[in-house]
Amino acid sequence: VFQPAGGQLRVGVAIGEHVLDLAAVAAAGLLPADPAAFAAPSLNAFLALGRATWTATRRRVGELLTAGNTELRAAGLVPGALHPQDAVHLCLPVEVADYVDFYSSLEHATNLGRLFRPGGEPLLPNWRHLPVAYHGRAGTVVPSGTPIVRPCGQRLSPRAGEPSFGPSTRLDIELEVGFVVGVGSRLGTPVPAADAAEHIFGLVLVNDWSARDIQAWEYQPLGPFLGKSFATSISPWVVPLDALAPFRAPARPQDPPVLPYLRAEGDWALDLDLLVELHTAGMAARGLPPEVISRTNLRHVYWTMPQQLAHATVNGASLRTGDLFASGTVSGPEPGTYGSLIELTWGGTQPLRLPDGSERAFLEDGDTVTLRGWCGGDGGRPRVGFGAVSGQVQPAPLSG
Amino acid sequence: VFQPAGGQLRVGVAIGEHVLDLAAVAAAGLLPADPAAFAAPSLNAFLALGRATWTATRRRVGELLTAGNTELRAAGLVPGALHPQDAVHLCLPVEVADYVDFYSSLEHATNLGRLFRPGGEPLLPNWRHLPVAYHGRAGTVVPSGTPIVRPCGQRLSPRAGEPSFGPSTRLDIELEVGFVVGVGSRLGTPVPAADAAEHIFGLVLVNDWSARDIQAWEYQPLGPFLGKSFATSISPWVVPLDALAPFRAPARPQDPPVLPYLRAEGDWALDLDLLVELHTAGMAARGLPPEVISRTNLRHVYWTMPQQLAHATVNGASLRTGDLFASGTVSGPEPGTYGSLIELTWGGTQPLRLPDGSERAFLEDGDTVTLRGWCGGDGGRPRVGFGAVSGQVQPAPLSG
Repeated sequence: VFQPAGGQLRVGVAIGEHVLDLAAVAAAGLLPADPAAFAAPSLNAFLALGRATWTATRRRVGELLTAGNTELRAAGLVPGALHPQDAVHLCLPVEVADYVDFYSSLEHATNLGRLFRPGGEPLLPNWRHLPVAYHGRAGTVVPSGTPIVRPCGQRLSPRAGEPSFGPSTRLDIELEVGFVVGVGSRLGTPVPAADAAEHIFGLVLVNDWSARDIQAWEYQPLGPFLGKSFATSISPWVVPLDALAPFRAPARPQDPPVLPYLRAEGDWALDLDLLVELHTAGMAARGLPPEVISRTNLRHVYWTMPQQLAHATVNGASLRTGDLFASGTVSGPEPGTYGSLIELTWGGTQPLRLPDGSERAFLEDGDTVTLRGWCGGDGGRPRVGFGAVSGQVQPAPLSG
Repeated sequence: VFQPAGGQLRVGVAIGEHVLDLAAVAAAGLLPADPAAFAAPSLNAFLALGRATWTATRRRVGELLTAGNTELRAAGLVPGALHPQDAVHLCLPVEVADYVDFYSSLEHATNLGRLFRPGGEPLLPNWRHLPVAYHGRAGTVVPSGTPIVRPCGQRLSPRAGEPSFGPSTRLDIELEVGFVVGVGSRLGTPVPAADAAEHIFGLVLVNDWSARDIQAWEYQPLGPFLGKSFATSISPWVVPLDALAPFRAPARPQDPPVLPYLRAEGDWALDLDLLVELHTAGMAARGLPPEVISRTNLRHVYWTMPQQLAHATVNGASLRTGDLFASGTVSGPEPGTYGSLIELTWGGTQPLRLPDGSERAFLEDGDTVTLRGWCGGDGGRPRVGFGAVSGQVQPAPLSG
């Protein structure tokens, strides 16, 4: 979803460094869906139309953009309906209905267990039997570029034994990938894992900003609340599941075997490269480029999207168009592949050294974090880019 | 929000056993707000107009309904705009944005701590310092009367050590009261406790249906998910905060003293009588009336609405019109005042005996639970009714 200078919000598709205005293309009668679905401030109306329309629309857009096709030009849409990406405003692509955050990386859950519950068994007994998840705050899912105001809250000082109030001193990121639900489901009727592709439209990058000190004090017994709810950033581009077909791979083995409702046929792991860039205000002032602090891949994740969807609805909970389901932090097996600072710096005890000479255990004001993702582009495979999701940390408000 | 036979959804106000159609009254120019706010399928448009409009509208409706006022009759609205409640369909009053569930009853948190973590300290160290809460599923908030399909899921058999799958065998209710946000707030800017009345439009009864066996197995470390997300029922009537002014009372003392951001001036406890009725299929077949299984009062609750609102936004999380914040189970100090079956039957060990000779530890298929609430009606005080929220348990689906 984008907004051209002086224009209304509308749905577009990325073509290299440009955006093609699908509202204009549909208004010219060139797309197999109601033009109103594209002349809209979110993808939701298009998402609700279902897989047959998603696939037909994607195929048709591909056709229109094939070398030699003159339909866009004949309809007077070139260059008018093609905008340079940097001349438009990229917006929140989806009106988020409910936001669910999983905890599906074995390595992340093990690392967090070690850090949050030292001395205990890192992985709790339920973890290998079900994809653990909780509901997050849908109203604070924000588009890439939204400033992230450092949250205030209660945190326990280990010495005092009492909580104190103030700005979080352990502000962190979580590198995640989320899927967006297109077609909803009926209350009381579970969605089988086999039907996942009928409901999942596509994927976005997610930065689940986390205040570790607030989270550690508040999270028992009902889970994370204010440690997460201040902001969750998503990328402006939703990559359709169809576009990811060449990059699907066998899921990793699961031991013990899962219950029947969690069994999913087909290759549902995704060979999606991911990285985290950190750019401090000091680096920016010295003209230094952002530093890559983690490189990982979504294929490491233990629980797959059909399993997540089947689990989230097995109790009869319904889906709605615009539901966002995030993977949880994507961490690989080695330290440089972890998707959060609390893991990369091991609870802040091993700060990162940055090119401007500074160190980082957790984020400081002025830091910009950017997540990037892409599939392929190597070995002759096409490249499918997810673009980026970015946010800069702003100082906490003075009050409180 | 109601739907007259063959008509569109619209906003109404309860007058005894009738509903006054506010869309018709506003269309006749008799209300101080845009008629479109009432000719709507939810209260949200009206809620967004803010406290001055809420108060002026309530005052004006009271004036129109005063004995001797002839304006409704002169406009041809009596009897046409007055519908018997049992001739219309009462709908979900609010399009729920985010749903947050607190855990604000000291007695309930203590009881659940004893039952879920036997041998440990019942109240966790954070409980008296902050109003513990988690996000629930907004998309499965349903109106009174919606059938509640028994959820399936994983639960741990104490003997097996491994989870099994099937219909919940510990289906429970939670008697709660929720407040609905009218006016939202800006991301990054906390809402002070003193501003609560600018944001809170009114209150509803909430039944937060809970599958205790599913919840017990899944809830660590990220909190309740499928044990709660299959359905949350709310009453059709939203009682405006203004109407509750005569029933406000001093909040109970809090020890230790709370942090400054949680201090709220004024009387924010509410003398709201609550009860839980259970009607089994067997009782219905014998013509027996519902049995009252609990009587309690909202004034027992430890954390107040301004404290809940200030806490939920202190990290900068924004509010939206339609946000629902529920109290958590309202339990009083004595066994007959508990707001859930797991407390009333002490984990199922002390089943209730019912008038048809049956026993209940947890809910069986065919059981209907109704929550009722009212303020006053005694000692010369006016009575303000909350109506009822009701739901009947349906058998689990066969698949799985």
